[in-house]
Amino acid sequence: MKNMNCIIASTSTIHGSNYLAYLEEALNELYKDVSEIIFIPYARPGGISHAEYTKKAKKGLAFLGKTVKGLHEFENPVKAIQEAQALFTGGGNTFLLVSQLYNQKILTPLKEAIKGGTPYLGTSAGSNICGLTMGTTNDMPIVYPPSFKTLGILEFNLNPHYLDPDPSSTHKGETRETRIKEFHHLNSMPVVGLREGSWLRVHQQDIKLEGGLKARVFEKDQEPYEVESGTSFKDLN
Amino acid sequence: MKNMNCIIASTSTIHGSNYLAYLEEALNELYKDVSEIIFIPYARPGGISHAEYTKKAKKGLAFLGKTVKGLHEFENPVKAIQEAQALFTGGGNTFLLVSQLYNQKILTPLKEAIKGGTPYLGTSAGSNICGLTMGTTNDMPIVYPPSFKTLGILEFNLNPHYLDPDPSSTHKGETRETRIKEFHHLNSMPVVGLREGSWLRVHQQDIKLEGGLKARVFEKDQEPYEVESGTSFKDLN
Repeated sequence: MKNMNCIIASTSTIHGSNYLAYLEEALNELYKDVSEIIFIPYARPGGISHAEYTKKAKKGLAFLGKTVKGLHEFENPVKAIQEAQALFTGGGNTFLLVSQLYNQKILTPLKEAIKGGTPYLGTSAGSNICGLTMGTTNDMPIVYPPSFKTLGILEFNLNPHYLDPDPSSTHKGETRETRIKEFHHLNSMPVVGLREGSWLRVHQQDIKLEGGLKARVFEKDQEPYEVESGTSFKDLN
Repeated sequence: MKNMNCIIASTSTIHGSNYLAYLEEALNELYKDVSEIIFIPYARPGGISHAEYTKKAKKGLAFLGKTVKGLHEFENPVKAIQEAQALFTGGGNTFLLVSQLYNQKILTPLKEAIKGGTPYLGTSAGSNICGLTMGTTNDMPIVYPPSFKTLGILEFNLNPHYLDPDPSSTHKGETRETRIKEFHHLNSMPVVGLREGSWLRVHQQDIKLEGGLKARVFEKDQEPYEVESGTSFKDLN
């Protein structure tokens, strides 16, 4: 973790705001020393193309005044990751994203780049992959990935877009908390439920909850608990 | 489909009612000629044990006056499926259920039993597995199954617990409709969104929507559409 420099966000967009707008200040800081960012568009939200998604990312990051390129534009994606000044993986479908990371053989290069200090932004699916596995994604299994194992930048798993149970709901589908409880019957790592508007700042040997909201932490065989913005997750594992 | 005799339900329980209670009349008919039902408890909702879950199923089916046994009680589950008078697969986590069907080697025997006419009830995850794949489940990927391929009793996929988008929601997670649209970027089979209170009655060469509610049908490259209770899905593929 020594050199890592990441923003791992629950969502790209908060209600009533533009794409990435709520992260402007944090992104100015994350990307301050770079001139070019490589965008990984593989999660394809709503099934849009890599080119369309990269266009959206470019627009969202325009305030930075940096060059933004889509990873799909490179002939050799492994080399592109290894030589990248900075990275951003957008949200969409985690099953599709993870399948592509395996098929393009960029899971390990991506992990090494981030561990080596390349500034990294992940939103939603792009954050999910920072955990030990994608086993706590909310996404639909639209494609079968070679494995659920992900980057392991964090020593725990994430549940982005964390949603509290709605006490007025008449729906019988499982609540998010029930699903994570089921996860812990078969898995032992902690899970951090990140509400929309929260992010983790991985920097200078710390992992800190940012964004003003509380997060909900689920540890195996314990009652879930809330932690305040500013809490460190450095020792959560 | 000639001999099949199934109830494939969105949910086991509807709001304000007891487990399976809304299906009483339909289950009396489904199971009318049998004295014993084998319950498949592998989906373990909320992580409960096979024994606890079987107890719940026994209680829910008590009105039938039949014997109910859990599949986990049999030394040879393949033989138990092959010799079963009737079957019921309960809901819970579809990833766990499908993993167990593969690991216990009962996917093919189960398919053959149902195709051979053994009366079958599925609820939620137990219904999901009747589709071609589990690719349109709502569940969390808490375990990595050997494949997403399922029974293929139906020539399409199901989305149980189908939820309409909430126009007042400020949440940025994908709606169910967006998720199914993403599925259709990578898969071609139709998807039937079954609302809680709906079921499919597979009987006498027909597959009919029952339960009074409309269902929402998603076909690749088409606008989704609503169909009335009573609609046949015999030719949907």
